[in-house]
Parts: sequence; structure tokens; C-alpha cells
Amino acid sequence: MDSPWNELTLAFSRTSMFPFFDIAHYLVSVMALKHQPGAAALAWKNPLSSWFTAMLHCFGGGILSCVLLAEPPLRFLANNTNILLASSIWYIAFFCPYDLISQGYSFLPVQLLAAGMKEVTRTWKIVGGVTHANSYYKNGWIVMIAIGWARGAGGSIITNFEQLVKGCWKPEAEEWLKMSYPAKVTLLGSVIFTFQQTKHLAISKHNLMFLFTVFLVATKITMMITETAFMPFACFEDTLSRMLFGWQQQFSPFEKKSETKSSFNGTGSSTSKPVANASDKVKKKHSKKTE
Amino acid sequence: MDSPWNELTLAFSRTSMFPFFDIAHYLVSVMALKHQPGAAALAWKNPLSSWFTAMLHCFGGGILSCVLLAEPPLRFLANNTNILLASSIWYIAFFCPYDLISQGYSFLPVQLLAAGMKEVTRTWKIVGGVTHANSYYKNGWIVMIAIGWARGAGGSIITNFEQLVKGCWKPEAEEWLKMSYPAKVTLLGSVIFTFQQTKHLAISKHNLMFLFTVFLVATKITMMITETAFMPFACFEDTLSRMLFGWQQQFSPFEKKSETKSSFNGTGSSTSKPVANASDKVKKKHSKKTE
Amino acid sequence: MDSPWNELTLAFSRTSMFPFFDIAHYLVSVMALKHQPGAAALAWKNPLSSWFTAMLHCFGGGILSCVLLAEPPLRFLANNTNILLASSIWYIAFFCPYDLISQGYSFLPVQLLAAGMKEVTRTWKIVGGVTHANSYYKNGWIVMIAIGWARGAGGSIITNFEQLVKGCWKPEAEEWLKMSYPAKVTLLGSVIFTFQQTKHLAISKHNLMFLFTVFLVATKITMMITETAFMPFACFEDTLSRMLFGWQQQFSPFEKKSETKSSFNGTGSSTSKPVANASDKVKKKHSKKTE
Repeated sequence: MDSPWNELTLAFSRTSMFPFFDIAHYLVSVMALKHQPGAAALAWKNPLSSWFTAMLHCFGGGILSCVLLAEPPLRFLANNTNILLASSIWYIAFFCPYDLISQGYSFLPVQLLAAGMKEVTRTWKIVGGVTHANSYYKNGWIVMIAIGWARGAGGSIITNFEQLVKGCWKPEAEEWLKMSYPAKVTLLGSVIFTFQQTKHLAISKHNLMFLFTVFLVATKITMMITETAFMPFACFEDTLSRMLFGWQQQFSPFEKKSETKSSFNGTGSSTSKPVANASDKVKKKHSKKTE
Repeated sequence: MDSPWNELTLAFSRTSMFPFFDIAHYLVSVMALKHQPGAAALAWKNPLSSWFTAMLHCFGGGILSCVLLAEPPLRFLANNTNILLASSIWYIAFFCPYDLISQGYSFLPVQLLAAGMKEVTRTWKIVGGVTHANSYYKNGWIVMIAIGWARGAGGSIITNFEQLVKGCWKPEAEEWLKMSYPAKVTLLGSVIFTFQQTKHLAISKHNLMFLFTVFLVATKITMMITETAFMPFACFEDTLSRMLFGWQQQFSPFEKKSETKSSFNGTGSSTSKPVANASDKVKKKHSKKTE
Repeated sequence: MDSPWNELTLAFSRTSMFPFFDIAHYLVSVMALKHQPGAAALAWKNPLSSWFTAMLHCFGGGILSCVLLAEPPLRFLANNTNILLASSIWYIAFFCPYDLISQGYSFLPVQLLAAGMKEVTRTWKIVGGVTHANSYYKNGWIVMIAIGWARGAGGSIITNFEQLVKGCWKPEAEEWLKMSYPAKVTLLGSVIFTFQQTKHLAISKHNLMFLFTVFLVATKITMMITETAFMPFACFEDTLSRMLFGWQQQFSPFEKKSETKSSFNGTGSSTSKPVANASDKVKKKHSKKTE
């Protein structure tokens, strides 16, 4: 790589998140909260509860990473400037006359810009989390991945938990830890940056940050424009899942049959997939009945 | 202020909470627990669970403040004397023959005395929380308010959470963080003592402690004697809420109408309040349906 | 005690848990998870969720003790070797072709061996917890008991909480903190080792560890072979409960009658127990209605 490219990525990796990217992040988080059913009415009736929920949406990842590392979860409150910034955005988003902010936000280019800038903060958060965890546990690469992931995508876990406490959210066993797209992409980034941190990836950090951010922003904007759940990992995931958990399925029907026939000379391994699926469904039914 | 007054308040601010005020606090907390439906029967069936709940009621504020500052929540257990004191009060309150304690507690003067002394401990807790948070975060006045508040009124949050885990309490979104009177008055105290701590309030700490305690005890006893939810803040709150969140309401109907009429020359700002309320109700209905 | 006995117990107390006993513990924990209804089907559909639950089952006690002492709950993830070991066992238990592991585990001798080895790790955990808490709080014997207990038997609390979040588990007030047999025996061990630690028990630690482990393994295996809930403490508990909470019951009917008759010359103290039970039932009904 030539020198101008290096200079560009280095300058990019030194960009401060503070005023503008943070504002974009808070704006996207607060608008996501506002579009939940009942959130606007609740804000009028109980502003404190609404403000608290908005802060959890804005700072959820940091809070979760603090909890996991036994650091004070209140530490985010010590950053008075950011709290005031987020509070102002919550205030104007919910209480602005004529609902100007919502109307402005409903234009697609504004949404694209804000969402793109929010994705940039995600990279910064992942890198921050991985670096921070590395200062605690030198060789704890699992911890580094977990903290990077928690800081980048932990907001949704914290807000789900908050909704559970509020009674808005009835969790279902099937949906527990079902990963959303941001969670997946943050996990990927967390793994990559951990490998970079532990010198298993021969690429400088600022280059990696630039490339990952470009990837994040590009996929996010593509998904928003095409309005599809465009999944760049779908086929990769499928392959991985098949490699790790699928290869045993060819043996499964054999086992089922051997149980019913009470004999160990099964020959049905060619019709593996559908039978396995069927037995899976039966299992599910059974589990629902017994619950 | 003259010297005898200063001496009085200084002596007052140096009063030790330990034997008598703490006993009053534990007594009020345990009796509040005992008057919950089912609590007495549960104590006979599962004493450990009842004891644990009683400890949460007695030490809830301290536990919550420890969790928020990432200090060991078990630290309250290290104070063997206080634990034994609270346990004894739990034991005699629940298992005393002839239910003597309950009968004694049912006399109004005893209740007034105990409740008044409990309010004194509240001031001490708020001051302790604010001072403690100040030693962590020098300029973190939001943290100081939060910790003072958590220590003074956090017991109810902890016990709500405990009831959620036990399945006794079905939370509703509307009631989440709806503040009770103790929560409000503790928040006020926390704000005042934080301002005093950061030198924005030109009054010495012992004077402020004396005045705030007198205010706390007086309002509490007035509320208990008159048996009304006497709200000294009601009009102040109303004004504040109107200032912060109400001024936009005059624009709201205008906005609604402009939406229906598709014109921007609305003139209905004089009939703002009733229409705003109506639209508010419509919003609520809508949000209930969509939930 | 003679020297060979001392040498035996000393050598025993220095046994490393790492490869074999830990494997037994992970195996028993994961198999317990797998026998829950729906767990096997869930593992196929959402491997990450299943893996996370398995880790909570394996490391739950350590996590709970970390939370209670405000240490990073993620610390268990820093021990890469143990995580990989537990993950491997989870993987082969859930995804092994022909379900070989489950079939092997269904033989009683294998189960007995694994369960016995798991009980050995319990002693080590209790001792570790008590010693660790002692390094924090010199005289905090309540903390020492709590941490020893949390580390030895906290897994079930953590997994209950996890099921609550997942929505699988509807808690009932009556069952909250109703102690299982492992919880009781761990509490006993925690109390004993705390007394040993604070020099109130004139027995060396390695002897106590040996004797307690023998007791644990013997009762566990007896319970598994006879398939009864053999309760060595039942009569002890009954006595203790009668001593602490039962002696007041002879006064209870007196009190009830005095309430109905409005007279204080009751004479029914000979028929105490049945009446007390009846009034207890009435109380329960009442509490259910009022809830």
C-alpha cells in the first residue's frame, strides 16, 4: 500500500467521534425508541421513564461492557457532556413542536446519513472494547471478543432486558439470543479486531478500521435502500453451520430407525435431511407439550 | 446564624445512626414487608426466603448503590452487627408470640416515632451516597445525584425487582419508574446535597442536613396523621412539567389540524389544552391496540 | 490421628481438579441441561444460545460469586483451557453422531462415577470460595458462608434466572428459594469450612476436606442408587425449624381465640398444632385471594 492510502486511513482512524458521529448515534437510537408503539405517549405521561429508556438505548453497549468487566455501570453518567448531548436529542426528538425532528428524519437521505455515521461509531466501539479488554486479560481472546461484541451491539440486549422488567416484552425460548444482523456483523468485527490485536492478522489497525467501516456502511446503506434483509453472511453461515452441526444429521435417521426397529443394521442414510427435519419437528411438538 | 444554632445543627449532624435510628429503619421496613399479603404465611413455610426478602428491604438502597458503583453488593453482609440487628427485628416481628410487635406497632404514636426516625436515616444515607460518589468522580454531579438517590430510595427498586423474580409482581409499562413520594423527596434531597457538595449552595452541610431532616420528618408525619397523600411538590412539579414538556402542546393541535387540512395557516392555538388531551388519549388507545 | 492418615488426606487435598474432575463436572452439568425438554431441539436451531446456556450451567457458581464480590463475571472466559474443555463436552454431548455420549451416560455406573467426581469438585469450590472471601473480609463470616455457598451451589440460581429471562420458567412465590438437596449440603459445608477458617473448629483443613468429600459422595451415590430423596438432614432440620420457628405456635391459637372471643383468658394451648395448621391454611387462602 502506498503512502497516501496509509495517510488517509491513519487520518480516518484518528477522527474524533465526539460531536457529530455521537449525535448521529444518539439520533438513530432515540428515533428507534420513538417508533416503538406507545413510546411517544409514555414520554408525555412519564418523562423520567422515557428519558431513562433513551439513555439505555444510547449507552447500552457501554453499560453492558462495564457490567461484564465489573466496572461501575454508572461511569457513563460521569461524562456530563455526552449525557447532556443525548438528553438534548431525546428532548427535541420527543418534545419538539410540530414534531419537526421526526419529519426531518423521515427523509431517506437524512436517515441514510445518520445510519451511516452510526455504523462508523460501531467500529470505534468494537476497537475500544477489544483494546480495553486486552489491557485486563493479556491472553483472554474470548474475553476480548465478548467485550468488543458487548460494546458494539450490547444495546439491544440491555434494552430487551429493560423491556422485560417493564413487562412490555414477553420473551420466548426460541427467540432468545437469536442474533440480529447488527449483532452478527459486530461479532465478526470483534473476532477480526481481536485477531489483529493478538498479531494473528498481518494488517495494521488503521487499515483494518477503514476497511471494516467501509464494509459496515456499505452493507447498512444497501440494506436500507433495497429494504431487504440483505445478508452477506447467509451462505457463509449456512456452510459453517452445516460443517459444525450438520454432518451428524446423516447419522440421525439411522439412529431413530435403530431405536424403532431395535436393530443396528440401518440402511437409510441416503434420505437423511427430510427425516431429520421431521424428527426435529416432532421433538419440538413434544417439548411444547411437556413444557 | 448565631452560635447556639450552629452548635445544635453540628451536634445533630454528628448523631450516630447506629443503634436507635437503624432499629427504627429496620422496624419500619420489616413491618412494611409483613403487611404485604402472604408474607406472614410465607415466613412460616420458607423462613430463609422471608429472611432474604427482609434483608433486601432493610439494605436495598445500599445494595443498589454498590451495584451501580461496581462495589461488592455483599459488602453489607460484612457488617455483622447490623445484619444481626436486622435479623433479630425480622425474627421478633414475624415469630413473636402473641404477635406482640405487630400489636405494639399498630399504635399510631409508635408508628409516628419509627417513621420519623426512619426519615432521619434517609438524610444520612443521601449525604453518605453523595459524599461517596464524590470521592469517585470529582465532577460527576449526575453520578452524585444518582448515587444519593439510589442509597436513599433504592430499596423500593430492589424489592420490586425481587418481586419480579419471585413472580409476585406483574409490571406494567405505565407504572415503570412512576415515582412514589419518598422517591421524589429523596431525589430533591440528592440534588440539594450535590449542589452543596459542589459549592453551588452557600450553606454549610450540617445546617442543610438539619433543615432537610426537619422538612422530611414534618411532611412524613403530616402525611401519616392526615392520611392524605399530601404533596408539597404537586404545584411545583406541575409548573416544571408544564415549562419543560407542556409548552409544545399549544402547537400540537395546530400540527394535528395542519395534517388533516393539509394547510399551514392554523388558527386554533387558543383551544390547545383539551384538544391536546384528546389527541393524547387517542394516541394511548392506539398504542394499546398495537401493543 | 496417625501419620499415614494425615498423609493420605493431605495428598487428597492437593489433588488437582483440572483435567478429570472438571470434565466430570462439565459432563454432569451438560447432560442435566440436555435432559431438559426442548434443549436438544434448541441446540440444532440456535447453537449459540445452547452453548451460552451450557456455559452458565458449567460456570454458574463462579459467575454468581464474582457478581457478589464485584469481580468481572467475564473472568471465567479468560481461562481459555476450561472454556474449550466445557465447549468440547457441550459439542460432543449435543452433536455426537448416534448420540453415543447420551447412550454411554445412560449406564448407571458411568453416571455414578461422574456424579461422585462432580461432588468432589463441590468441596473444592466451597473451600475456594470461603478462602477467597476471607482474603477480602477478615471477620466477615456471613460473607464467607455466602460466597462458599454461591460458588458451590450458585449454578442453579444463575440458570433459574437465565430461564426467567428466556421465558421458560414461570416463578412462583412459594418456590422462591426453596432449597434443593445440593443447596442444603453446600450451605452446611460452607458453614463448616467457615468455622474451620475462623479457627472455631479444631480440625485441620485437609482432614475436613477429606471427611466432607466422603460424606458428599456417599450421600449422593446412596441417593442415586436407592432413587429416593434420602435426606440426612430431614430430622435435624425439623428439630431446628421447630426450635426456631415452632415454639411460638403453641401461643398462636390462644391469640386467634383471644381475637375472636375478645377475651384474654384462653385455655386451648394443648390443641396447638392442628389449630395452628388450620389457621395457617386459612391465612394461605386469604393471601391467595388478596394477591
